[in-house]
Amino acid sequence: MTKYVYLFSEGNASMRNLLGGKGANLAEMTNIGLPVPQGFTVTTEACTKYYDDGKVLNDEVISQVEAGLKKLEEITGKKFGDKKNPLLVSVRSGARASMPGMMDTILNLGINDEVVEGLSTLTGNERFAYDSYRRFIQMFSDVVMGLDKSKFERIIDEMKEKKGIKLDIEFTAEDLKEMVVKFKEFYKKEMKSDFPTDPKTQLIEAVKAVFRSWDNPRANVYRRMNDIPSSWGTAVNVQTMVFGNMGETSGTGVAFTRNPATGEKKLFGEYLMNAQGEDVVAGIRTPNPISTLEKQNPEIYKQFIEICETLENHYNDMQDMEFTIEKGKLYMLQTRNGKRTAKAALKIAVDLVNEGRINKEQALLMLDPKQLDALLHPTFDEKDLKNAEVIAHGLPASPGAATGKIVFTAERAKELSSKKEKVVLVRLETSPEDIEGMAVSQGVLTARGGMTSHAAVVARGMGTACVAGCSSLSVDEDNKVCTISGKTYHEGDEIAFDGSTGNVYGRKIDTKPAEVSGDFATIMEWADNARRLQVRTNADNPRDAEVAYRFGAEGIGLCRTEHMFFEADRIPAVREMIVSSTVEEREKALAKLLPMQRKDFIGLYKAMKGKPVTIRFLDPPLHEFLPHTDEEIRALAKDMGLTFDKLKHTVESLHEFNPMMGHRGLRLAVTYPEIARMQTRAVIEAALTVKKEDGYDIHPEIMIPLTCEAKEFNYVRDIVAQTADEVIKASGEKLDYKIGTMIEIPRAALTADEIAKTAEFFSFGTNDLTQMTFGFSRDDAGKFLDAYYDKKLFDSDPFAHVDQKGVGKLVDMAVKLGKSTRSDIKLGVCGEHGGDPQSIDFFHRVGLTYVSCSPYRVPIARLAAAQAAIRNK
Amino acid sequence: MTKYVYLFSEGNASMRNLLGGKGANLAEMTNIGLPVPQGFTVTTEACTKYYDDGKVLNDEVISQVEAGLKKLEEITGKKFGDKKNPLLVSVRSGARASMPGMMDTILNLGINDEVVEGLSTLTGNERFAYDSYRRFIQMFSDVVMGLDKSKFERIIDEMKEKKGIKLDIEFTAEDLKEMVVKFKEFYKKEMKSDFPTDPKTQLIEAVKAVFRSWDNPRANVYRRMNDIPSSWGTAVNVQTMVFGNMGETSGTGVAFTRNPATGEKKLFGEYLMNAQGEDVVAGIRTPNPISTLEKQNPEIYKQFIEICETLENHYNDMQDMEFTIEKGKLYMLQTRNGKRTAKAALKIAVDLVNEGRINKEQALLMLDPKQLDALLHPTFDEKDLKNAEVIAHGLPASPGAATGKIVFTAERAKELSSKKEKVVLVRLETSPEDIEGMAVSQGVLTARGGMTSHAAVVARGMGTACVAGCSSLSVDEDNKVCTISGKTYHEGDEIAFDGSTGNVYGRKIDTKPAEVSGDFATIMEWADNARRLQVRTNADNPRDAEVAYRFGAEGIGLCRTEHMFFEADRIPAVREMIVSSTVEEREKALAKLLPMQRKDFIGLYKAMKGKPVTIRFLDPPLHEFLPHTDEEIRALAKDMGLTFDKLKHTVESLHEFNPMMGHRGLRLAVTYPEIARMQTRAVIEAALTVKKEDGYDIHPEIMIPLTCEAKEFNYVRDIVAQTADEVIKASGEKLDYKIGTMIEIPRAALTADEIAKTAEFFSFGTNDLTQMTFGFSRDDAGKFLDAYYDKKLFDSDPFAHVDQKGVGKLVDMAVKLGKSTRSDIKLGVCGEHGGDPQSIDFFHRVGLTYVSCSPYRVPIARLAAAQAAIRNK
Repeated sequence: MTKYVYLFSEGNASMRNLLGGKGANLAEMTNIGLPVPQGFTVTTEACTKYYDDGKVLNDEVISQVEAGLKKLEEITGKKFGDKKNPLLVSVRSGARASMPGMMDTILNLGINDEVVEGLSTLTGNERFAYDSYRRFIQMFSDVVMGLDKSKFERIIDEMKEKKGIKLDIEFTAEDLKEMVVKFKEFYKKEMKSDFPTDPKTQLIEAVKAVFRSWDNPRANVYRRMNDIPSSWGTAVNVQTMVFGNMGETSGTGVAFTRNPATGEKKLFGEYLMNAQGEDVVAGIRTPNPISTLEKQNPEIYKQFIEICETLENHYNDMQDMEFTIEKGKLYMLQTRNGKRTAKAALKIAVDLVNEGRINKEQALLMLDPKQLDALLHPTFDEKDLKNAEVIAHGLPASPGAATGKIVFTAERAKELSSKKEKVVLVRLETSPEDIEGMAVSQGVLTARGGMTSHAAVVARGMGTACVAGCSSLSVDEDNKVCTISGKTYHEGDEIAFDGSTGNVYGRKIDTKPAEVSGDFATIMEWADNARRLQVRTNADNPRDAEVAYRFGAEGIGLCRTEHMFFEADRIPAVREMIVSSTVEEREKALAKLLPMQRKDFIGLYKAMKGKPVTIRFLDPPLHEFLPHTDEEIRALAKDMGLTFDKLKHTVESLHEFNPMMGHRGLRLAVTYPEIARMQTRAVIEAALTVKKEDGYDIHPEIMIPLTCEAKEFNYVRDIVAQTADEVIKASGEKLDYKIGTMIEIPRAALTADEIAKTAEFFSFGTNDLTQMTFGFSRDDAGKFLDAYYDKKLFDSDPFAHVDQKGVGKLVDMAVKLGKSTRSDIKLGVCGEHGGDPQSIDFFHRVGLTYVSCSPYRVPIARLAAAQAAIRNK
Repeated sequence: MTKYVYLFSEGNASMRNLLGGKGANLAEMTNIGLPVPQGFTVTTEACTKYYDDGKVLNDEVISQVEAGLKKLEEITGKKFGDKKNPLLVSVRSGARASMPGMMDTILNLGINDEVVEGLSTLTGNERFAYDSYRRFIQMFSDVVMGLDKSKFERIIDEMKEKKGIKLDIEFTAEDLKEMVVKFKEFYKKEMKSDFPTDPKTQLIEAVKAVFRSWDNPRANVYRRMNDIPSSWGTAVNVQTMVFGNMGETSGTGVAFTRNPATGEKKLFGEYLMNAQGEDVVAGIRTPNPISTLEKQNPEIYKQFIEICETLENHYNDMQDMEFTIEKGKLYMLQTRNGKRTAKAALKIAVDLVNEGRINKEQALLMLDPKQLDALLHPTFDEKDLKNAEVIAHGLPASPGAATGKIVFTAERAKELSSKKEKVVLVRLETSPEDIEGMAVSQGVLTARGGMTSHAAVVARGMGTACVAGCSSLSVDEDNKVCTISGKTYHEGDEIAFDGSTGNVYGRKIDTKPAEVSGDFATIMEWADNARRLQVRTNADNPRDAEVAYRFGAEGIGLCRTEHMFFEADRIPAVREMIVSSTVEEREKALAKLLPMQRKDFIGLYKAMKGKPVTIRFLDPPLHEFLPHTDEEIRALAKDMGLTFDKLKHTVESLHEFNPMMGHRGLRLAVTYPEIARMQTRAVIEAALTVKKEDGYDIHPEIMIPLTCEAKEFNYVRDIVAQTADEVIKASGEKLDYKIGTMIEIPRAALTADEIAKTAEFFSFGTNDLTQMTFGFSRDDAGKFLDAYYDKKLFDSDPFAHVDQKGVGKLVDMAVKLGKSTRSDIKLGVCGEHGGDPQSIDFFHRVGLTYVSCSPYRVPIARLAAAQAAIRNK
């Protein structure tokens, strides 16, 4: 027989999965002898069973709840539904992971017409008793029966009017008695049945309501955002009520054992006397700092301090606690590891190690890598920010603080930034031609577009601050003027905005760059010692490479050469190459691109100071480089000295039905080997140059994209090797280089043993691999993926966290097959998953050599890699 | 040490892979004591080594060739390069599979200025000797040295002019001597070196030339068309020359042991006295039927008949032989299993079994399943065809004979065919709206488009005859008139054309339908007894289903419901459904489609007479049903009573970047469950109707397309099951149905164990699975696949033959995973590979239950499945 109900005295902290976080900690506090109002927990398994049985509460669960109640009566000496010494309980949900606000709490459960009288006698406070009763009716009707709270508020308002009073507090005990009658009448009218007076019925219905709440829309949204599987279920905690509002010797509060904002080792908290928990949170009365409790009640304070120490010593982490004082007696209602800012998290982790409480590995594991993101972008100087007014608000599309002179075009951004001016780019929306301008700006502010708009996606990739979809912004690019919330700004006017909050400010605010120093540096050092996975970066230009180098990148894992092709000074030559009808013409155009590409690579090598650089050859379909509207084609045809018809024909002939699966990647090199030859020459010549000029011993790694067959890879590999060897031989120098491939097509993973015979490294392109493995294109999936989340068909976004069951199986196969023919093959990942902690854990387990991620993810990846190594020891 | 050279006496017929077909058979004939001019074979391994070594002939091979030559001299008593009794040889290529015309033969090798004198003395025929010499120089220069034959012809022409003669035969021995001198001078001038006089040099160079020829363009094209791997290489046969042109007691001929056109068991062949092999083939002189040899030389004839019998008894198959008579002595130069027509192939196979020479399994294995195609389409009545004039010629786009009245529109085709008139559809080119018209026509003739045009692809799928790209046809649809090669035809005029030849005729020609009877039926019966794989058909309408039933289909493996949606009477309701903005609107539109779909399924069930029918739910993206140009949108908006803007917006919102990987398949059912509900209702109601009306116990199999995740499948499965159960319950009847899924996305294969928990069957959609696994879309791959074939990166088209290494690995995984959770899971394939013999062999081996293919492929699949079962016993 499954045990579905555990008394607090039967559980412990390790039973979190079964009892939920709250339940496990209540049990643990009970075990270590802290004053906890006793109770029991209905397990998450009971919840799962409830759903498996088609939302029916199993008889076994019900009878175990009843048995639990009986034991609770024995422990407390009170009786459920008894009018002399009644047991009242609170009912609260508590899942494995904290899900704040998932369900409202029900307090005072067990009350009815008889019990209220007993409570009145027992406390000598009739008004308190009836206030508790009417609150219970209201809460129960709302939370359990779905009868909207506001309807009860209307009754209260009518009574206030009738009695000529304004505040709840002015109601007398008699008023509240009348209110209870009215509430019950209203309940009966709405629900066609009497308000349940049987406390056991109240309890069972409340348990069901908690289970139901697991599936409510806001819980689902929260879970999806936080990757909590819906299969976990929630537990229910039934706990004896204690009252902080029984007069001036009663009270309630919350406290942290350390400062959650700074991490400082000093008790931090607030409390209110003669109040209930909600009063502290609601903000109607101003709570007192916890330190003043010492004066008010030195004994309780001392006891509380001792408990805090006990708990921190016990959990070895900063605790966030709720407590209640009932008639001079202290009760602990909850403890948990406290939420904290990124800065505090680092400080606490380092301090705990220094205090000898935990070791470095434990310190690393207690950090959330994603939280580091907050520390990696420029921030506003706090003093300067303090008196800055928020003039508008948009979507926080890419984190970081930005301040500078307004410009309205990418060209102007480049112009001013080349004169060392700090600019922010303000646009209706951005387009691919703006990329260079975005790169040199402090930040991008757009009037249109959401979190996945061009501006947002590109800015996040660059680590540039971006506020998107700012609806109170209107932009007149032609006249170089914009209005923000009605006020006009001209080019050159200074503004500021924060991509982490979406706030826009009407003046310059000083910013501070991100720094990896102090506690952050300490943690990174510990992480580097702990991890096995190397961390590289995805960078297409020296600017990104420098940022990543500063953040500890151990090389470039992915340089996308096509980004270089889009730049204004080379797009004409790229287009010339595309419209070429002979190899000779194409080679002529490529010859123009060669010095530019060489310069790009020189910049990258120098920025990485001799660390390995992986360069991926041209990947996108050629039509991406050409215009598509007749108007643009006409303009380009004129520029290129071509007829409109010829260029139009070229554009049309390059049209593809499914460009994702079209003529791209190494397929371009198979049909136009001369492109691969030019790129090889640029890679090798640049390496020779930097070797000579700076003395760095560059080891370029040339990466062939989109391989699906070994012979295909070998064909391109041979062209690259031949060209590289020629260039090296002609130079009279020595240079090591490697040729490898992306594994981003299922067939490449399935035949990785054959490919590894000649490929010296694999880099898993898990973005494309996810698309091909799932059979949906990221560009199109947006239309139906929401329905998939709503219907719980996918737990999480497979582009955010690598799908271990499907895509991961292919990665694992490819790793094993690849090693079977080349035991020392270098294995990396360069999709966006390379910066995702959950995916990094998987990549560690399957045995990759490195992950590569965007520059601003490098510290996150270093920590995540360390955690993976420790966790999977 | 590897043995690279085998004397004919050292080999045998089983060494085909090493010695090539020709070499193995020459060895075999030698072994069984037939008169074969002796020689030796340089192995295919020597060829492979030649390529592995970078096109260099290995020293070991050279010395073994020389040793072989020495032994040949001992056997023949002649000496290579000897002027008294010279050994002359022929050098011929011979691969494992027959590759006709891959390389020219070199005859008379070993001749030089001295040898020619000896030959003259020996034969007493100086003219013959010098003619042989000059021919050798010409052949060697051309084939071995790449010196174009025509340049020598020019010298011959100049000499003719000078001597005032017209024919080669008029040259005297002296003339030919002079010609030899001129040839050698010309050779020296062109090649900057003397013509090689050393016979051994000649031989080694010839061997190299044969090896080189393996890689020439026409050999590569032939191999690709016939799926012969380039890794096989060719052998070289060096054989003592015998001469059929040494006077009236010499001769040469070719013969078949049975009639290759009809299969009749009667010697069939031709010969010429005083001639060489090329004279028989060239057609300058008319050869004599083999039967006349009896009169001319009864002894030789008797010996030849005996040899024919010996060979047929030995090989147990019809033999195709070449022979030469040199001065009254018979020599066998070659024997091989003879090529034959489909009809002859069936008759010979059945006869050989009846004659007790082979068993049924051997008979089945000797047939080429693909050859059956020729017997599955209507043919012209031969008598009527005899005096019909070919008036034009187009591409043979879809086999079969068609005759009927000309119509120019699909509507007119439907109109006339409904009156039982036979029509042929004549169009500039066809489009998707023509599908119904094509289906009711006897055949389709188009002026434009190639073998992969819409008309060609659709017609092949339907089994309708089609001649495409007929350039001498011009069509004026508006005036209902066309001209073919200048002559005018009006609507209603009768023409005929043959989709197997591309011939067009200016009048009606009687046709005969295909019949599975006689030898064909016998073979099919044997095949059915031998095979394990079931054979189903892909059919979307009763007409196709009936054809397939007639050809022996055991059920429908794939009915694509979307094809039904395109029909003129329902496309308005389909479009109404698509533009619906609420569930209610959509359900209203679906309600209109329900009776139509139900009728479709009733037709299918009836045509299949109770055999299982698998119905795939709506698969393509919805935008495929909407128009795309503004003009069409405007027209449709008017029809539908919508504004242009609203419809345009709908069309645009449905646009997809990669429709292959977009919102289609069961993704439609996830977002619009009501579509799946309507289709389920139609499937089940139709089954109940047919059960009642015809007594067939229908077991519908509902197939959900595009699954990538078990939960997703379960969601749709539950909707289908719920609806089906409701309909069945309401009817008060009983009905079994199954719900399964396509496996066509890599992730579905990778997680097949989870999917099989609820899916009752899998059908592998290897078309889409190939696209996703290779990461290219079929629509776009055409642009680069040719380069892949040219560069030998792919051996064959992965859409024609299933890629066993990649796609096949996924299929194999999915089979094993699927069986691990559902041991009796039904497994089928419904991609085009289901009709491809090579793929069928693979599907047999991985353990599928059935293959499903187009109706006209059913007999082919039955035979291929039998062969697979026998081969893999």
